[in-house]
Amino acid sequence: MNEQARTVRMPMVGRVLEANDDVAAMTRGDLARRGVFAIDLIGAPGSGKTALLEATLQRLKGRRRPAVLVGDLATRRDADRLARWCDRVVQISTGEGCHLEAGQVRVALDQTNLEGVDLLFIENVGNLICPVGFDLGQTAKVGMFSLTEGDDKAAKHPYLVAAADLLLLNKIDLAPHLSFDRAGFEADVHLLNPTVRVLELSAVSGQGLDEWIAWIDRGISAVQGETPE
Amino acid sequence: MNEQARTVRMPMVGRVLEANDDVAAMTRGDLARRGVFAIDLIGAPGSGKTALLEATLQRLKGRRRPAVLVGDLATRRDADRLARWCDRVVQISTGEGCHLEAGQVRVALDQTNLEGVDLLFIENVGNLICPVGFDLGQTAKVGMFSLTEGDDKAAKHPYLVAAADLLLLNKIDLAPHLSFDRAGFEADVHLLNPTVRVLELSAVSGQGLDEWIAWIDRGISAVQGETPE
Repeated sequence: MNEQARTVRMPMVGRVLEANDDVAAMTRGDLARRGVFAIDLIGAPGSGKTALLEATLQRLKGRRRPAVLVGDLATRRDADRLARWCDRVVQISTGEGCHLEAGQVRVALDQTNLEGVDLLFIENVGNLICPVGFDLGQTAKVGMFSLTEGDDKAAKHPYLVAAADLLLLNKIDLAPHLSFDRAGFEADVHLLNPTVRVLELSAVSGQGLDEWIAWIDRGISAVQGETPE
Repeated sequence: MNEQARTVRMPMVGRVLEANDDVAAMTRGDLARRGVFAIDLIGAPGSGKTALLEATLQRLKGRRRPAVLVGDLATRRDADRLARWCDRVVQISTGEGCHLEAGQVRVALDQTNLEGVDLLFIENVGNLICPVGFDLGQTAKVGMFSLTEGDDKAAKHPYLVAAADLLLLNKIDLAPHLSFDRAGFEADVHLLNPTVRVLELSAVSGQGLDEWIAWIDRGISAVQGETPE
């Protein structure tokens, strides 16, 4: 039964992905021409994506001009939280959709004033699986895990780990209260993606945020063709 | 673009779901005839599904005869953890699949000795979205949130909350280290599902497990047509 369902479904999924990739390529070209560094942030529900973006926007205020797209099944809560720190926030409500698609990002960008914008955060729907396969036209894909999810999550989500340009390990402030094998987690990561960096941080305590901000600054410099510091 | 993709996709998804429901109905009938209470456990990656099942199997040992099906993209880690407490554990590897389907459950049950089994746990793939729409033939759907995911997760996952027969709020032992509005969380839940019970527990400290076990015992009694205590 399952094999049958898979055989029936594959060609259709193939065509949808192809159309998605065409739109993503257009978006990628547009963003590159504008000098926008675009991050697709993927993590489980509650891994701390919105909290990290809040802390990040706060630190970048006055120095960078970011825009944010936020994907959620329902509610405007994340967008409302982020709008306190950024005047260009667009909520994308996906209904029952488990990931963002390139077309949704394109429509949202059409509604966004990108004048002067140098940084775009796309907070994907909270899901470690489905968003990985959909190119949105981002410059970099950032995967987010958190200490409270357990040290086996990299091994159990190999596609995200393999596809990520950077991995974040959030909620490091809770380390004293949890059992989490950081060496084992890193070993799993580097079996799947030998070159990816794992950045430990806490959106709550601020630990690791300087390195995260420095990584973003280097990304913007690269997109704008500047010589990195 | 997105609307177009949706229009193209819907009829195919419709047929797949229909086939899924037919298989699920067969499984439901078979399990009912055997007097098996079957739980589909749905929660985010790292919400603590496997840890709860470990603690549950440990407590039921000698008193109930459970079987467990475990869905994961990759690795046998969860199945290996659970096999310490239960001799009927089947791992279902979904590859890139973001949820279990009725056909996979049926095939796994065909490989399981159900002689004397009165309880079936189906640990779904860690994902708060996609598993909700797929009937597996379960008796009860249990949704799991955890305190570390934040108090907005019920509102942001309305389909799971509306479909659940019971909601678990895990990691209650970490409450002193987190900011989590339990009253607000419960209010969100009961807007979406006025009758569902929210059971607070900790798979680590054991808090709330007696009530969880009592709920399971009542479920088995109901399926086997016994008068509940």
